[in-house]
Amino acid sequence: MKRVYLDSAATTMVSGEVLQEMMPYFTTIYGNSSSLHSFGREAVAGVDEARDIIAKTIGAKSNEVFFTCGGTEANNWAIRGVAYANISKGKHIITSQIEHHSVLDTCKQLEKEGFKVTYLPVDADGMVSIPDLLHEINPSTTLVSIIAVNNEVGTIQNIKAISEIAKFYGAYFHIDAVQALPAFKLDVDALGVDLMSISSHKIHGPKGAGALYIKNKVKINKFMVGGEQEMNKRGGTVNVPAVVGFGKAVELNDRELAIKEKKMFEISSYFIKKLEYEIPDIKFNGNPYQKALSIVSVTFNGIEGERLITMLDMKGIACSTGSACASGSLEKSHVLAAMGLTDAEVRGTIRFSFDIDITRDDIDYTVRVLANEVANLRKESPLKIKKRS
Amino acid sequence: MKRVYLDSAATTMVSGEVLQEMMPYFTTIYGNSSSLHSFGREAVAGVDEARDIIAKTIGAKSNEVFFTCGGTEANNWAIRGVAYANISKGKHIITSQIEHHSVLDTCKQLEKEGFKVTYLPVDADGMVSIPDLLHEINPSTTLVSIIAVNNEVGTIQNIKAISEIAKFYGAYFHIDAVQALPAFKLDVDALGVDLMSISSHKIHGPKGAGALYIKNKVKINKFMVGGEQEMNKRGGTVNVPAVVGFGKAVELNDRELAIKEKKMFEISSYFIKKLEYEIPDIKFNGNPYQKALSIVSVTFNGIEGERLITMLDMKGIACSTGSACASGSLEKSHVLAAMGLTDAEVRGTIRFSFDIDITRDDIDYTVRVLANEVANLRKESPLKIKKRS
Repeated sequence: MKRVYLDSAATTMVSGEVLQEMMPYFTTIYGNSSSLHSFGREAVAGVDEARDIIAKTIGAKSNEVFFTCGGTEANNWAIRGVAYANISKGKHIITSQIEHHSVLDTCKQLEKEGFKVTYLPVDADGMVSIPDLLHEINPSTTLVSIIAVNNEVGTIQNIKAISEIAKFYGAYFHIDAVQALPAFKLDVDALGVDLMSISSHKIHGPKGAGALYIKNKVKINKFMVGGEQEMNKRGGTVNVPAVVGFGKAVELNDRELAIKEKKMFEISSYFIKKLEYEIPDIKFNGNPYQKALSIVSVTFNGIEGERLITMLDMKGIACSTGSACASGSLEKSHVLAAMGLTDAEVRGTIRFSFDIDITRDDIDYTVRVLANEVANLRKESPLKIKKRS
Repeated sequence: MKRVYLDSAATTMVSGEVLQEMMPYFTTIYGNSSSLHSFGREAVAGVDEARDIIAKTIGAKSNEVFFTCGGTEANNWAIRGVAYANISKGKHIITSQIEHHSVLDTCKQLEKEGFKVTYLPVDADGMVSIPDLLHEINPSTTLVSIIAVNNEVGTIQNIKAISEIAKFYGAYFHIDAVQALPAFKLDVDALGVDLMSISSHKIHGPKGAGALYIKNKVKINKFMVGGEQEMNKRGGTVNVPAVVGFGKAVELNDRELAIKEKKMFEISSYFIKKLEYEIPDIKFNGNPYQKALSIVSVTFNGIEGERLITMLDMKGIACSTGSACASGSLEKSHVLAAMGLTDAEVRGTIRFSFDIDITRDDIDYTVRVLANEVANLRKESPLKIKKRS
């Protein structure tokens, strides 16, 4: 059976070049990068090179890049670490209603621990409200944390504007750039960010590696404690092969960004046009003018998204209702709800996320299957919908 | 140059069989284990199998094994998670003075946050004082956390006795079993533990995977938040290849334990006897009657251990002054200090840790080099020691 993977926002295949770079670190250069002997130094060399590549790619200094086990740890660390290290300034944090759960859940924890958290609303396109930010931010705000590219709808925020407001109030500015890294060139100075989370497995690097950019002089506590690794900021044995692979993946991603952008434009435009032509009564979510082209969120009116996904899966097509991290949960998408979609619309929404290897043939196949399945489901849907309400 | 790796307590090479098991999960079965489609389900199957293997090996249920990115995360989670989830019982935690930094540093954080922590002393062999435990434990104690096999000297604690005392006072009992896993058969019921941390890269599994055993009904908060992974207890994309490799490594480790124990007995006895014969004025640390045979801690009187390690390194021999995680730190070993070694003795101590592939030839070479270097260093040492003081 044909298989089409349209879930690259959930995770990606490790590229051959990346895997080749990692291989020696499993069996030959296997030292602990904290060890002082030659086995350790060989491992350190790999880790340092990866750190240098990533730093250079995002316009940071090497001593501002700290490896974590992934984007979730980076987000947990950024928010908890800054919140607790800056209590003398205040206990107010600002984020948005459309963050990844690793940000939202950390904020909810902090609320229980006595912090005040403001969750900024978004408009129908998923853009964070700047007037609300201006209204809520105050001298006790220590951190503004915003998702640069939303993982469910692809909307890109006005990072620079938010940065300037945060700066004016002396608040640190953190972005969750996990979905931004595959989509566009990140430069921490141009973006004006103090902290930035990125992840390896969204760009054909291995799972198990991420990084937190922490601008020099940012006051931040540790999250994972237990050793002097990562310039004494993050305990735990460094996952050397994964970090080496992450470095290579960042290098390749950066090299291919321009080609990828062009390809994503072609593929997503083709997909959107075909969908509009073939399937009635659908709408697209996210800011059409400011969006990661690789993410296409579609609402199929009158459809149960989860059922549609199951039908697609049976035909070899992989996509998702939203964030993979929330899959299987009964909770409806908080992102789509914040953008004002009705419950029925939220339930009828599917995220397709593309990668550079997707062909027009894949799209043709997907739209053909979709058109069929949507038509079938709509025939039976009135009953189903009544049963649910 | 001959290379002899005597630092297997710091990390180990990934075994060929483990790597082979992992490989498909990088490039073929690359789905996110949180995804509901076939790519996701294939990944889940690998993760579930690894979980089942580990659960079976340690005598746990599969829903009691939670994957982390390593031993440090498991220790951070166990201690913070239990401390905060059981505040209604009390805010007192008991640990020992010879724990790994991932336990000690977490406890120090908790002290800053208003918890009371008792650090039990140890005797000259590194055995935790049971009378002190009995004296300190009280109804407000929520957790006793003890390192099962010390990572610097190999001493094995009387786990079962500690467990019974903890149970009597209704405190949960956590063991850091990172160095125990390579050394002996772990059975959570026989040991009487409620929580147990283990790590993959100490048993020829990949770095980046660990697990926390959490007995059903233990009240514990989350540490890493952000998704519903790991039965909704630990957020973050599961590092599927690493977890699969961890499962295989546990299986192989378990299968080889008996052979390994025999080999470790032979090798460490041979090493100790040769050292005693060849080098005067040395002593061995740890409990000779209750010790992981793979860890041999030796104090070379009148020697700077760091210098000796450098000399050995130049001859291709890798070993360490103590925990890899504290390497490069200026702090002296808290473990050896707690065991009553003088500052000079602590500075003169080196940890050799063995693995199954070490030969008598490796040992002969190591002892020959050691004898030479120790003699040379001792000739010049009075001057050096004076300079330092």
